[in-house]
Amino acid sequence: MAKGIPFTDIVRDLPATVPFVGPEALERRTGRPFALRIGANESAFGVSPKALEAIRQAAEEISWYGDPENFELREALAAKHGVATDEICVAGGIDSLLGLVVTMTVSPGTSVVTSLGGYPTFNYHVAIAGGALKTVPYRENHEDLDGLLEAVRRHGAPLVFLANPDNPMGTWHDAAPVSAFIEALPETTLLILDEAYIEFAPDGTAPPIDTAETRVIRMRTFSKVYGMAGARIGYCIGNKELIQGLNKVRSHFEVNRIAQAGALASLGDPEFVDHVIRSVEAGRRALYGLAERLGLGTFPSATNFVAIDMGSRERALATLAALQERGIFTRMPGVAPQDRCIRVTVGTPEQIELFAETFETALAESS
Amino acid sequence: MAKGIPFTDIVRDLPATVPFVGPEALERRTGRPFALRIGANESAFGVSPKALEAIRQAAEEISWYGDPENFELREALAAKHGVATDEICVAGGIDSLLGLVVTMTVSPGTSVVTSLGGYPTFNYHVAIAGGALKTVPYRENHEDLDGLLEAVRRHGAPLVFLANPDNPMGTWHDAAPVSAFIEALPETTLLILDEAYIEFAPDGTAPPIDTAETRVIRMRTFSKVYGMAGARIGYCIGNKELIQGLNKVRSHFEVNRIAQAGALASLGDPEFVDHVIRSVEAGRRALYGLAERLGLGTFPSATNFVAIDMGSRERALATLAALQERGIFTRMPGVAPQDRCIRVTVGTPEQIELFAETFETALAESS
Repeated sequence: MAKGIPFTDIVRDLPATVPFVGPEALERRTGRPFALRIGANESAFGVSPKALEAIRQAAEEISWYGDPENFELREALAAKHGVATDEICVAGGIDSLLGLVVTMTVSPGTSVVTSLGGYPTFNYHVAIAGGALKTVPYRENHEDLDGLLEAVRRHGAPLVFLANPDNPMGTWHDAAPVSAFIEALPETTLLILDEAYIEFAPDGTAPPIDTAETRVIRMRTFSKVYGMAGARIGYCIGNKELIQGLNKVRSHFEVNRIAQAGALASLGDPEFVDHVIRSVEAGRRALYGLAERLGLGTFPSATNFVAIDMGSRERALATLAALQERGIFTRMPGVAPQDRCIRVTVGTPEQIELFAETFETALAESS
Repeated sequence: MAKGIPFTDIVRDLPATVPFVGPEALERRTGRPFALRIGANESAFGVSPKALEAIRQAAEEISWYGDPENFELREALAAKHGVATDEICVAGGIDSLLGLVVTMTVSPGTSVVTSLGGYPTFNYHVAIAGGALKTVPYRENHEDLDGLLEAVRRHGAPLVFLANPDNPMGTWHDAAPVSAFIEALPETTLLILDEAYIEFAPDGTAPPIDTAETRVIRMRTFSKVYGMAGARIGYCIGNKELIQGLNKVRSHFEVNRIAQAGALASLGDPEFVDHVIRSVEAGRRALYGLAERLGLGTFPSATNFVAIDMGSRERALATLAALQERGIFTRMPGVAPQDRCIRVTVGTPEQIELFAETFETALAESS
């Protein structure tokens, strides 16, 4: 470490970790492009044709900054969710929003509660802020609501994270226990409810949106069902005091003009969203069936991916490597006991067929 | 303020300011779109046709996250600047990079030096980190190198900001005094050298790039000469220890796929960049001439904008309002004594003609 650089104590002590290695980095290591990219829960069903047209048009105005207020999009989102425009904040994806909420609520030493093996990018932001992460193990492959609540109380944590549906297991809690969890939180604790995958979940998974409640901020994204991961745009819904706090710390010109246009157009194509949801449901069933034929367990998923139980971390790692060797990019949970699984993003029927053949071959050879 | 929300002390006390109001917000207030948008130093000359083609192609893959390592772009930038790939960090524009460097170096109470009336978004990030901003007045319409150095020493500041060429005045320092400034910095002080406009500056404005030097980090953008403001992409060049620090705090998936593709293609079209630079030079001369005909002063500019001296803040404000009333969006510096100027982005010849007519009319009516 060059001795002169005036790093803060926190940054000096941070490890040089990255939350996720991209498939491009793996391709550079092996020198071969992947034939199938089903590891990052990117949508296999693309974007709405309306969004693509809006994106093409916006490209003509790429020399202009996007609207720093994201006004038209917030108006459309407010109408969709039945809230006010000042109860919505748009940013460059949920990853960015997580960083903003952490900046807003976490000082060095602040206790923050999340699940052990939950979304790593959240943990990454907490570490940058100098927060003290308190983790709660999964219970029966679900994030443990009772355990999270108990940890919040024990540590007096002002911030707790819950993904519902969950990533990386794909499991979920119904609205009623999530609402009860929020109700039970101390008045001075904020829940980040990450609902990146909520559109894929059964009706009755999302609690009703109540912006009078200051103890929860809901996060949504255009990266999953809307198929715009590469555009970087997401939003949150919450009490307007929370949103005002975010407005004090967000980068106002962060969201690019193309993402704004594509997101707005996406909202005008609910038929496309329905098509994606139905396609993902069919794909999940195909993956459940495949695993069953191969004698492997799965977990019912409310997301666009399925976690397949390989029985042990060693076998999961070997399977991941065998798939990668055969040109298929998947990922696996990083932390025990979830790390006995591989996480497979739902592809198109053709992609699932290719995965099935390759997976079966890989298993046969390794057994 | 809802009493339960667990804001940090810093955020609770932050004012609800925004660094810049967007032209869209002004349009919503008046109910009329601007006929001419020459207030945000966006390029009037668009993007390279090669970049536009790359952007259109990237739109087809918008469902995929961008490469979190920005590898191909960093390779191309490294070749362009004669540095190593690990001496470059790509992010969602200089605004984002400023936030990252502040996160990396500023703790609550840390002194940070900048010019009084310098780039507001830098100040915004310092406030979020709880830093103590120490400002140095401009001297003869230039950022005051001696004054900045003196302030760094007096306050023991680990971080100092300098834009060269300057924004909002458009003035610049030659490479030699900037190099001398860096040499004179304490070993534990880092200079952010914001070179957003460097391509428009005379040869000999940018100091040689020396990544052995840990006291400076250079910031560049695709928003100005490359015409990609709406895509959100910029980069910095520095010692690899600095870049490693940024890698510990950056949002790895921040940069969108379209921006990555457009930026890479832009680097392959130097003829287009030359065309923009020559067009901007011609446009600056036209604006100097216009101001002279109208009996107004200007400052030689090394950027894609010209500051026109209206003599007083009152007259600058009135002119801005009169232009806005007539459908022209411009901006003005926010702080005295620079706030006697209006800042006009160089447009195409047709746009400059429209501005000239409108400006002349507005002045005649207000005098």
